[in-house]
Amino acid sequence: MTRAYNFSAGPATLPEPVLQQAREELLEWHGAGASIVELSHRGPEFMQVAAEAESDLRKLLSVPDDYAVLFLQGGATTQQALFALNFAKAGQPVDYVVTGHWGKTAVKQAEPWGKANVAADAEPGGFHDIPARSQWRLSPDAAYVHYTANETIHGVEFRDIPDVGAVPLVADFSSSIASEPLDISKFGVIYAGAQKNLGPVGLTVLIVRAELLARTGQPRPPILDYRAHAEHESMLNTPPTFNWYLAGLVFKWMLAEGGVDAFAKLNATKAAMLYEVIDGSGGFYRNEVAKPVRSRMNVPFFLHDPALDADFLVEAKAAGLISLKGHRALGGMRASIYNAMPVEGVRALATFMRDFQKRRG
Amino acid sequence: MTRAYNFSAGPATLPEPVLQQAREELLEWHGAGASIVELSHRGPEFMQVAAEAESDLRKLLSVPDDYAVLFLQGGATTQQALFALNFAKAGQPVDYVVTGHWGKTAVKQAEPWGKANVAADAEPGGFHDIPARSQWRLSPDAAYVHYTANETIHGVEFRDIPDVGAVPLVADFSSSIASEPLDISKFGVIYAGAQKNLGPVGLTVLIVRAELLARTGQPRPPILDYRAHAEHESMLNTPPTFNWYLAGLVFKWMLAEGGVDAFAKLNATKAAMLYEVIDGSGGFYRNEVAKPVRSRMNVPFFLHDPALDADFLVEAKAAGLISLKGHRALGGMRASIYNAMPVEGVRALATFMRDFQKRRG
Repeated sequence: MTRAYNFSAGPATLPEPVLQQAREELLEWHGAGASIVELSHRGPEFMQVAAEAESDLRKLLSVPDDYAVLFLQGGATTQQALFALNFAKAGQPVDYVVTGHWGKTAVKQAEPWGKANVAADAEPGGFHDIPARSQWRLSPDAAYVHYTANETIHGVEFRDIPDVGAVPLVADFSSSIASEPLDISKFGVIYAGAQKNLGPVGLTVLIVRAELLARTGQPRPPILDYRAHAEHESMLNTPPTFNWYLAGLVFKWMLAEGGVDAFAKLNATKAAMLYEVIDGSGGFYRNEVAKPVRSRMNVPFFLHDPALDADFLVEAKAAGLISLKGHRALGGMRASIYNAMPVEGVRALATFMRDFQKRRG
Repeated sequence: MTRAYNFSAGPATLPEPVLQQAREELLEWHGAGASIVELSHRGPEFMQVAAEAESDLRKLLSVPDDYAVLFLQGGATTQQALFALNFAKAGQPVDYVVTGHWGKTAVKQAEPWGKANVAADAEPGGFHDIPARSQWRLSPDAAYVHYTANETIHGVEFRDIPDVGAVPLVADFSSSIASEPLDISKFGVIYAGAQKNLGPVGLTVLIVRAELLARTGQPRPPILDYRAHAEHESMLNTPPTFNWYLAGLVFKWMLAEGGVDAFAKLNATKAAMLYEVIDGSGGFYRNEVAKPVRSRMNVPFFLHDPALDADFLVEAKAAGLISLKGHRALGGMRASIYNAMPVEGVRALATFMRDFQKRRG
């Protein structure tokens, strides 16, 4: 067996020790007589797994006490459909700052149940930059302001938390949660599909201030009601236990590796290595994002001649570097370098990129 | 390592060969350089896994060609919230036949977006029987008629498909899908959380007739729109790939074991073994469900003296028989005996029950 360095944008690489532990425990979890995937979510074994995962995540992210941590299904996109339903009154404006593909998606999900206002839109500039805060046309009576902390496809990342006054910020942190310290008290909600920085796909983490949970929102079934999920500790119906368990192993791994402070340093180092190769390539490689908002998690880049793309991918794979093809919306390449991607993997990619340029430049 | 016989109602026991294969492949899937849980849902590896799973499930269940098969998140409960939104016009009646806890839940999820009419309700009789078809008060203009094919908690199972004329049947088969042959053409929708008969939790299968997908329904976000999911082959957003993969392994296992015909025989045998012990115990054990509608999948039973419950559970566990505690809504015991529970497991339970009665009766 040979594991490659896997730059997939999500589902993404997991820490190998986590996979090894999951493998060891897969047929029987801690003497329980069954796999954790076979045990009731209401039994003592999974209740312990669930409680530890929440407690570890709270520690990892320094979640303030007045925030609920929910473990949900449906991915980030489903949450985007539920925000207006849970947090806005009928007809109340909901503000969206669009800095890439996922911000656009969020608006579409909000429209049937919220008066969606695009307060700022970076699409006319090709999603290469973040509109200055002074240009945002916010609604004074908005239920919330939504933005995407890191745009996974376009490789654009907020490097600060925007000040929107008293209106709660709702932020999609799917591809950058736990990648560096974050002051959660500045947000009403942060949420993330787990399949990038938190572990396996099939689990969505939502961290929400109690004040927002108390809002009336609009008529909705219990299963789409965040307050009901909070009251039932994310067990309103059967949760995705194995995904929750795997994420819990990733949380323990991140804490053991030094937590978000340690990952912030590693992630800055890894991103700098790739941008240095790109910027130093004299145009052989190209990243089009404004430098101050380049993503530390997803590095999209283009070869100067797209006719080289196929060879680049084939040779990279032969060098043990996989999943580098860019999203079909953009083309080119993309290297996703979340917490679980080791520095050695990024170094191997940087070396390969320099070598490929030497041979084909 | 000692695996017990696990009678959990769901998450439930998985076929051991499936867990073994998953363990073998967990760090690297078929030479891909990564685990299947780390690979893009859009990459060739997972696309193959997904396509095979659908094709195997279609074969296993003899799904007619004009039905879409969707692999979704959110559990059966989330689907219950979406039926009215997708299939009913605003204000149109939606009919519910309630024969247990899950049928009641389905009504609650439907209420905000459908004019829910409880056409029949077995609760006054303690959910011990199914109201005769002649007593159902169906709405002539209903968008659909919903029922629960097998009530997991109350142990009540429809043994025929009710005739409701031209109105589409929408049926929750969470705990009995693939347990015996079924004529899917009689339904508009059958759906099932996967964690009972199909494998792992975190995946929901929905089999829906094309005619229903064409309905306008009510305004809804794309992520809550079944037609959009069908058009994107259940990859409208990132699907729960590992759960889908595990379910696919279970489908292959079921086909290799002889398919639904073989399981129908085994399941009838297993259920008969337990009901025989209960009915032959002279009142030491008690099942309260009318014999013609007793569930083949979930056998709830009570000891004549609840003071014996704790000892029963402790001694059963010592005998390698776990997860027999009844649902907290009912108390007592429950043995869930889905496809993956071998006859030997049920025989061991029957033997234990007889032995316990001898010692404590």
